[in-house]
Amino acid sequence: MHPVLFYGVPQGCSFGSIVALEWLGHPYQLCRIEMLEQPWPADYARINPLMKTPALLLENGTALSESTAILLHLAARGLDRQLGFAQGTPQFDRLNQLLGYLTTDFFSAFSPLWAVYEMPDADEASRALLRQMGRDEVATALAHIEALLADGRQWLLGGTQRTVADAYFVGLARWAEYHRLFDLAQAYPRLARYLAALRADPAVQFAQAIERGEHPAGAGHFQGHVTLAALRERLPG
Amino acid sequence: MHPVLFYGVPQGCSFGSIVALEWLGHPYQLCRIEMLEQPWPADYARINPLMKTPALLLENGTALSESTAILLHLAARGLDRQLGFAQGTPQFDRLNQLLGYLTTDFFSAFSPLWAVYEMPDADEASRALLRQMGRDEVATALAHIEALLADGRQWLLGGTQRTVADAYFVGLARWAEYHRLFDLAQAYPRLARYLAALRADPAVQFAQAIERGEHPAGAGHFQGHVTLAALRERLPG
Repeated sequence: MHPVLFYGVPQGCSFGSIVALEWLGHPYQLCRIEMLEQPWPADYARINPLMKTPALLLENGTALSESTAILLHLAARGLDRQLGFAQGTPQFDRLNQLLGYLTTDFFSAFSPLWAVYEMPDADEASRALLRQMGRDEVATALAHIEALLADGRQWLLGGTQRTVADAYFVGLARWAEYHRLFDLAQAYPRLARYLAALRADPAVQFAQAIERGEHPAGAGHFQGHVTLAALRERLPG
Repeated sequence: MHPVLFYGVPQGCSFGSIVALEWLGHPYQLCRIEMLEQPWPADYARINPLMKTPALLLENGTALSESTAILLHLAARGLDRQLGFAQGTPQFDRLNQLLGYLTTDFFSAFSPLWAVYEMPDADEASRALLRQMGRDEVATALAHIEALLADGRQWLLGGTQRTVADAYFVGLARWAEYHRLFDLAQAYPRLARYLAALRADPAVQFAQAIERGEHPAGAGHFQGHVTLAALRERLPG
């Protein structure tokens, strides 16, 4: 059996794990979670009791959650492709630092904006407060990435190869457009150019097509969707 | 020169990196950042432009930020002590998953509570909203840890050895007491017992004494404090 990635739609941060799987180039399957259809299938708790995506069901029957862990797992399998780097090297540290930043500050900058959706009964002052908090935090996060790109680097970590950090970033950066906060090309021109280059990548286009519910072929590693029900016997106890 | 850890007081999540350095047992120095004294020393931007702790100035003159990256760096140096695990092993994945959870969901559960301190002019409804958000999120986070500990495990990752995840956890869990949200022993008894065991650890007691401004000896690896000014020539450009 191949690894199965559980990805969430719409707007899941699991997007980056799909991209990383395509870049890795080993056979894998996908399982789709419609995040807005509550409650989620009860069996998913055996994959991740936190009921979040992404999660990766491994060949040995264990399930791995948290983007950092999944991306570092794929990176370790893809050292020959420089999706990540060998433990103990300076690049290993740099990648962990960047993933640490993206999964914490960058990710959570958007949290107040999502929170507005989850409290339709909140009064207007509270909603305005959350929107302003989100806008300020996202502006700081985008400015940090813009500054990182100031040396003309092609990829987020520098170097000549894209890494799992680029895969993860493209899945998060789109949230800035979703919330219509900024004109990215005007306010963060380097970031906008970098994002445009990433979106021209076949793996990114593949992940976009997957999320839209189309049936792209990808580079030939994708072995199709499976349902949670069909996986029941493989799930951890 | 030895590595220098920049830690923040009060209540810094850098606490865990001090504990991990003591457990690692290699020589190191510390540099103290009083987080409430704004603005921070401008030179600190050369260590971490995000102006956050922890950060670790390495022997080669580069600075590493983000708790995950620092802890995985120390873990890689301490594989013989099982502070962490070799890349490509199942335990490597498990540790990354746990650190991923702690640095994201667990850490950010407290964010609404800290936000209340940072907006003294907010109206009472907004402050109440943030306090309720924080309380709900922290309750979920503590319950997740309580469930992890249900199998009687001694350390957060299971296994017979403490890891950098335990070091990091003890620095965050105290926030639940700081905000006086719960009677931990009553509401989360396994977590309370685990926390008490961690606090009996000499390295944890050392880190507490360091934060209080005392002069503990530790296990003999701590080589004293240095100031940012004294480090100026070692700082990255």
